[in-house]
Amino acid sequence: MATGSVTIGNFQLESGEWLEHVELSYETLGPSEAPVVLVCHALTGNQYAVGSKESPGWWSGLIGPGKNIDTDSFRVITLNVLGGCSGTTGPLTINPSTGNPYRSSFPTITIRDMVHAEKKALQALGINRLHAVVGGSLGGMRVLEWGLLYPKDMDILIPLAVTPYLSDTGIAFNYIGIHAIETDANYLNGNYTCSSDIKGFETARMAGLVTYRSEQLHKNRFARKTRSDGLFEIESYMKYQGVKLANRFDANSYLTLLRAMNTHDIGRDRGGIEIAAKQFEAKVITIAFTYDLLYPPEDICSFAHLVPDHHFCMVNTRFGHDGFLTEFETWGDILSVHLGVKSWRRFKQQS
Amino acid sequence: MATGSVTIGNFQLESGEWLEHVELSYETLGPSEAPVVLVCHALTGNQYAVGSKESPGWWSGLIGPGKNIDTDSFRVITLNVLGGCSGTTGPLTINPSTGNPYRSSFPTITIRDMVHAEKKALQALGINRLHAVVGGSLGGMRVLEWGLLYPKDMDILIPLAVTPYLSDTGIAFNYIGIHAIETDANYLNGNYTCSSDIKGFETARMAGLVTYRSEQLHKNRFARKTRSDGLFEIESYMKYQGVKLANRFDANSYLTLLRAMNTHDIGRDRGGIEIAAKQFEAKVITIAFTYDLLYPPEDICSFAHLVPDHHFCMVNTRFGHDGFLTEFETWGDILSVHLGVKSWRRFKQQS
Repeated sequence: MATGSVTIGNFQLESGEWLEHVELSYETLGPSEAPVVLVCHALTGNQYAVGSKESPGWWSGLIGPGKNIDTDSFRVITLNVLGGCSGTTGPLTINPSTGNPYRSSFPTITIRDMVHAEKKALQALGINRLHAVVGGSLGGMRVLEWGLLYPKDMDILIPLAVTPYLSDTGIAFNYIGIHAIETDANYLNGNYTCSSDIKGFETARMAGLVTYRSEQLHKNRFARKTRSDGLFEIESYMKYQGVKLANRFDANSYLTLLRAMNTHDIGRDRGGIEIAAKQFEAKVITIAFTYDLLYPPEDICSFAHLVPDHHFCMVNTRFGHDGFLTEFETWGDILSVHLGVKSWRRFKQQS
Repeated sequence: MATGSVTIGNFQLESGEWLEHVELSYETLGPSEAPVVLVCHALTGNQYAVGSKESPGWWSGLIGPGKNIDTDSFRVITLNVLGGCSGTTGPLTINPSTGNPYRSSFPTITIRDMVHAEKKALQALGINRLHAVVGGSLGGMRVLEWGLLYPKDMDILIPLAVTPYLSDTGIAFNYIGIHAIETDANYLNGNYTCSSDIKGFETARMAGLVTYRSEQLHKNRFARKTRSDGLFEIESYMKYQGVKLANRFDANSYLTLLRAMNTHDIGRDRGGIEIAAKQFEAKVITIAFTYDLLYPPEDICSFAHLVPDHHFCMVNTRFGHDGFLTEFETWGDILSVHLGVKSWRRFKQQS
């Protein structure tokens, strides 16, 4: 296991703007010579997919020796996304031109910008070929763009809980968050001292949360129960999660990533989704989750069938969208089966 | 057509608190001796279901001479809900005890409080018997409670786009709105000058809007299109609707009504929904709308079948929840068929 940061220098965005001295933070584990699996994190994730014993990462249940993404077989690398707030260049970074943090002057970026930056970061790390690119939600958007921007770079793409474009309803939910943050008096046009001062950031988190899990799950967990202070249990849960995110994440970074999600459309400048889908050269394993409100299994399924070499999987869960972050025991083997190379280290030792 | 206000005097709430000198505003039309249809409006509606030529009401397409709720046959009355802001006692009303508006000191009310107040208002107007009670969403919640609090008062109940209780997800969406309003610096603990100063009220409206219409409709209308200012069309639509509501509605009233919706559960203190459902004595015509996110047809259907004398209808629409406010030509005849008395005035003239 190693963590670190890699510099890709000056970097031009789709918009034509340049970002100077761009860095990406990463976590990596597994044998350095093994085939590489690139893992892409979601909106509020970071490079610590595995993390530590004290602070396990968001996919620590999936990645490790003998696990579904087997680090006896693969070198796994996770990059903090461009525009993020966990070490990679983003709104919290000092703008070399001004000596001050970018804050809200951080430029608008796209999913494609993120992927180009990741490509450069991997090159800087000496990685020119990937076995697979895997990730869910915003991570899944990058998986899809990896397959179209660098179609010869990998054997397998595994986008989870993601459609080929963000729907208008998805943009609408993002806008609730954008509006809640930007109209908060403490946002100060992006020049806030502390994200946790911005109650609108909590509201924004809540507008995401309501799309992440199904009513079936909520009913099971909360059942309209109230607390002694009169709040419904689900209200208290939402508040807790809102405060928690505002304490650990940067509001300008959140806005940057929401806006990047809004640009997600693999058909853009490629003649539409049907034509774009035919350009995948890697095998695409799409994984959908039942009750996913914004990335419905039906839409993922109809997209999957446009891809030349595809395999569509649907995970039966009450979680909905959050399914890709939980219940690994029920669907993790989809990853191990399709990643294919079983126990690379043991194989190497035997040969 | 007449509009007016009726006084019901001091009124005790479920909580035990009293409201002094309560008034309810109404709109009525149709022959004064005809059977009465009580129409119940939704969250941001008002008593002007029919309205005027210059300003047509929200059900003007359904109510009128020869229309589906035929004012040649029925006297139609619509009351502004308790806690509302269109003349009925609510947070904007002067509290007789203090001489100042209630604002955020307006007590917590329930759907049952609303219905008891409506019963008293109708009594004060000399109406003791109803032919039908009809309404959607928050209006449908009142329709259901009318049937259980006053089971012998009517022949027919027509709840539209409503389930027998508000789901945890529904409470969650309401909480986004509550949080957005209450944490806005301009809310001033309810002592704001003007609702339109409260940007969090716009956010709250947006958190409602995203549940009212389906992605199928959004896709058809917005199709990820952007405007010259860079906003997505759907973002611009959301902002427009947010500002519009904040300009015409009272934020404290909105909070009062959201909290009342949260109390909606016909099974409360009645041994649960299955037992409560058996207590309806009127015929219950439930109308569900396809793609209704928070009041799904499946849940309405399973509830309907618990009611002794029921008829379940599902309207095929791309609108989702907002279906009950539009496309009357496709489903309005459900109302006319079940209201039954055809052209009462003509019938009377002939006899």
